[in-house]
Amino acid sequence: MQRILSDQLPAHVGEKVTIAGWIHRRRLLKSVAFVVLRDAAGLAQVVIAEAALRGEIETLPEETVVEVVGTVAANEAAPAGVELVDASVRTLSGSTEPPPFDLYRPTLTASLPMLLDHASVALRHPLRQAAFRMSAAAVRGFRSTLDGAGFVEVHTPKIVASATESGANVFAIDYFGRPAFLAQSPQFYKQMLVGVFERVYEVGPVFRAEPHDTVRHLAQFTSLDAELGFIDDHRDVMTVLRDVIAGMIAEIASREPAAVAAWRLAPPEVPAEIPSVPFSDALEMISAATGEDVTGEPDLAPSHERWLGDWAIREHGSDFLFVVGYPMVKRPFYTHPDPARPEYSNGFDLIFRGLELVTGGQRLHRYDDYVAALAAKGEPTTAYQSYLDVFRRGMPPHGGFAIGLERFMMRLLGVGNVREVTLFPRDIGRVTP
Amino acid sequence: MQRILSDQLPAHVGEKVTIAGWIHRRRLLKSVAFVVLRDAAGLAQVVIAEAALRGEIETLPEETVVEVVGTVAANEAAPAGVELVDASVRTLSGSTEPPPFDLYRPTLTASLPMLLDHASVALRHPLRQAAFRMSAAAVRGFRSTLDGAGFVEVHTPKIVASATESGANVFAIDYFGRPAFLAQSPQFYKQMLVGVFERVYEVGPVFRAEPHDTVRHLAQFTSLDAELGFIDDHRDVMTVLRDVIAGMIAEIASREPAAVAAWRLAPPEVPAEIPSVPFSDALEMISAATGEDVTGEPDLAPSHERWLGDWAIREHGSDFLFVVGYPMVKRPFYTHPDPARPEYSNGFDLIFRGLELVTGGQRLHRYDDYVAALAAKGEPTTAYQSYLDVFRRGMPPHGGFAIGLERFMMRLLGVGNVREVTLFPRDIGRVTP
Repeated sequence: MQRILSDQLPAHVGEKVTIAGWIHRRRLLKSVAFVVLRDAAGLAQVVIAEAALRGEIETLPEETVVEVVGTVAANEAAPAGVELVDASVRTLSGSTEPPPFDLYRPTLTASLPMLLDHASVALRHPLRQAAFRMSAAAVRGFRSTLDGAGFVEVHTPKIVASATESGANVFAIDYFGRPAFLAQSPQFYKQMLVGVFERVYEVGPVFRAEPHDTVRHLAQFTSLDAELGFIDDHRDVMTVLRDVIAGMIAEIASREPAAVAAWRLAPPEVPAEIPSVPFSDALEMISAATGEDVTGEPDLAPSHERWLGDWAIREHGSDFLFVVGYPMVKRPFYTHPDPARPEYSNGFDLIFRGLELVTGGQRLHRYDDYVAALAAKGEPTTAYQSYLDVFRRGMPPHGGFAIGLERFMMRLLGVGNVREVTLFPRDIGRVTP
Repeated sequence: MQRILSDQLPAHVGEKVTIAGWIHRRRLLKSVAFVVLRDAAGLAQVVIAEAALRGEIETLPEETVVEVVGTVAANEAAPAGVELVDASVRTLSGSTEPPPFDLYRPTLTASLPMLLDHASVALRHPLRQAAFRMSAAAVRGFRSTLDGAGFVEVHTPKIVASATESGANVFAIDYFGRPAFLAQSPQFYKQMLVGVFERVYEVGPVFRAEPHDTVRHLAQFTSLDAELGFIDDHRDVMTVLRDVIAGMIAEIASREPAAVAAWRLAPPEVPAEIPSVPFSDALEMISAATGEDVTGEPDLAPSHERWLGDWAIREHGSDFLFVVGYPMVKRPFYTHPDPARPEYSNGFDLIFRGLELVTGGQRLHRYDDYVAALAAKGEPTTAYQSYLDVFRRGMPPHGGFAIGLERFMMRLLGVGNVREVTLFPRDIGRVTP
């Protein structure tokens, strides 16, 4: 008999059906026993009345994989109002030892290192599963928004001859006996490909040898990158980014309603136009509000981002805030300056609930500007030759952005550590599982 | 004035419009000059009659980025039946030197190494662009087929503590002073995640330190991986794979008709049921046909795959052929044996026009079977502990497959080298651009 999933049971009341999944929980009462079975669609309750079967169930630890044939009966007290009765149970695959923590409790109570050590088991918890289903929907929304706007998906090298942004935080690799590096971002490639397709995006891993153990840094994360040509300036990039964020959130809401409900998530509204504040104004506001003079700072500290996040909610009712026009001194060499104030950039950050989520901006597009920018940073052009080559062959004004998927999910779900929304995180202390 | 793309011109005859793009070609005739402008949508012809403008055009090398304002006029001799007249031209970004090869010729005639050295320029050629637009559509079809079948997209670590399949062909990396490796496949992770989501897929880079310089191997390629649980055996996997391949080809045809036409591609029919031949029968057929006794061989040589590809077209009219039941001896340790003939596997390859395109099969799902399989191969279990852990906590019967995106496109387009369908290939001799 063809297996059905647990969420299909309400449509089969009175019928004999087959379901299959993991024994999520056994409840062995005096008069009757229950098996709660977990499958891809959720949970299903199976009533075990027969003594011999009960005896068998008592020997099956949680997480045993079973197939259950039974009759669907309505029961208002059961999950989704149905349960399986007159059941027979067949073990498909044994669980040779119980999980190191209880998966059936409403939340996992083990420590984060313990959960990460046993990630393949911890991820089975319904709430954790739900988080990654929402993450997959977010990526789908990213892609579908950009597909609809004429972007082409690309796959670029993760092994590169020189560091992308700077020499720091880069993993070295033995490449057939020569040194090479893991790409810190697809930045150079997505720019080169603007010269080919005008608009490109990539979803892929990026690598940072982050020497610090923080709640928001990983050695590998999933970067949602986009780059587009024929822009007037960075504001065209911000318009696309706004639509992308809205598309990601809309896809989560429409595709994973059960996961949204399990997390009691109220998906944030993305304003038609996300409020925007110039970097220098932001520092003045923070100085005035906190009494600490930060007006000369070249960048925002995490506490500043939090202050701005609160301000955006208070003043604009928005979970999102653009900070625009960061000083050139802290932005990478390919950043386009603001023509009216060349010490400031046409670069922006998007702050989501007080956390920097996206960095983006307009890039330089003329060869001579690149040569001058590298000279100003005291960097030789030789390391960048194969990248710079493209700017000698006609590149339109362009810009782009990169969203850290895990940070986005971290902030959306309000969890305290990016590792909670990463399947198998990598950091200075962890390279398994 | 809002820029429009070249393919929108026929809808604007008689109107004044703005287009922008690269100078693809200049034709400087005696009485008149033409600029062929290339943008994301294709080519557009601009008529230059005015002497001063002609003089300016003469100074602009190919690949200069320009904006053109002009009036759309019907002209049957022009591309798509329209051209721009009464045009003014503004340079957005200069091309400081002409490209190292002519992009305007019907095909690129430079050598492959030359084209790869200047990939960011070579990719601008309309035919190469078109190949990668089709590649993006193929990936989209892969995802949409699996999204529709209840699969969840995942992102797994590319930095791992031990080699996935075997110690060979693995890139070593300095991971915060400790040794680690680049993942050769997401195999272990996608299996672990079957325990979480039942059905998962991943599109991502995989890394092989291939020591040989062949036309079909790369050091990094894009692997389209899928894995599914609660199967009866490998035939359930083959059913999903068939639908995935059909979905990839359908998406190319429906989303990129211009690229399909440019390549004069006849997208192959995917039979409702792809023909299938047992491995041992395949060797007998090849022996009988070629006179060379290969019946004892543990694997298919490339020439055998080609023979089988021809046979499938001849006998079944199919570009695709499953070869099923490879000997266990040549398959990885996680392969599930055929219960009726334990020296043969429940593993298959999919041959596409004579080239192995996909490897897949049923995997072991019981912990004790893994321990026995590793012992039989003489491998200690210690290196695999965090992977094996999941099989002690209940895993359903499962299997999956991996499609090499670049090989798929290579075979689909009939090109001779996988590097022609890779944006920026990586191999033993190449780590730039």
